Amino acid sequence: MSRGFIEQLKFDEKGLIPAIIQDEKTQQVLMLAYMNRESLLKTLESGYTWFYSRSRQCLWMKGETSGNVQRVKNIAYDCDQDSLLITVDQEGAACHTGHYSCFYRDWDGTLVSPRLFDPEEVYPRR
Amino acid sequence: MSRGFIEQLKFDEKGLIPAIIQDEKTQQVLMLAYMNRESLLKTLESGYTWFYSRSRQCLWMKGETSGNVQRVKNIAYDCDQDSLLITVDQEGAACHTGHYSCFYRDWDGTLVSPRLFDPEEVYPRR
Repeated sequence: MSRGFIEQLKFDEKGLIPAIIQDEKTQQVLMLAYMNRESLLKTLESGYTWFYSRSRQCLWMKGETSGNVQRVKNIAYDCDQDSLLITVDQEGAACHTGHYSCFYRDWDGTLVSPRLFDPEEVYPRR
Repeated sequence: MSRGFIEQLKFDEKGLIPAIIQDEKTQQVLMLAYMNRESLLKTLESGYTWFYSRSRQCLWMKGETSGNVQRVKNIAYDCDQDSLLITVDQEGAACHTGHYSCFYRDWDGTLVSPRLFDPEEVYPRR
């Protein structure tokens, strides 16, 4: 993918832009995460999603620990050039809780996305 | 819809939470906008999406001028409780440019969402 479109984007005062991640096949929205310029470049170069963690203040590759990587299929940006929509081929589950989508709970508490793995078995204890 | 889930949400330091708006029928992602507590309450009360405009610093109802309202079908929130996924029944087009989705441009400039109206004919000149 060409990097040219990055010049069109408006990163916020912290240098971040929100990225909506959507499953290309099912069209299910999987997560919302933040990218800075560097993580977007790494995403373009590698073909896998990289984000910026606001809590840990570092770059992270989705699935680096769990193996649940996201292969990038397409990137679109919105009218205000301040958010991204990235369609992916999701390996395993997107959410660190083991659910397929991070949006697994409805407003009334209904579980709407299945749990595909037990995080205790996937992530090392810290 | 019950308001109870709002207590679970984490609004950011400006009192905002990003809301992904998705078309319930086509599953197309239409836009990303921000809500504060008050606009989320108005959304729940009215059944139509209300947002907080960061540039104009006021609440706005999507479609109030254009008629392109969004009827809320469901609201989900993510694992970190800091973003919303709202599925809607979209009247007309979601984008103020006349495109069905705000994400109408791919990284390579391809137009991926049709233009359904001419904004010059819909919005009053300012």
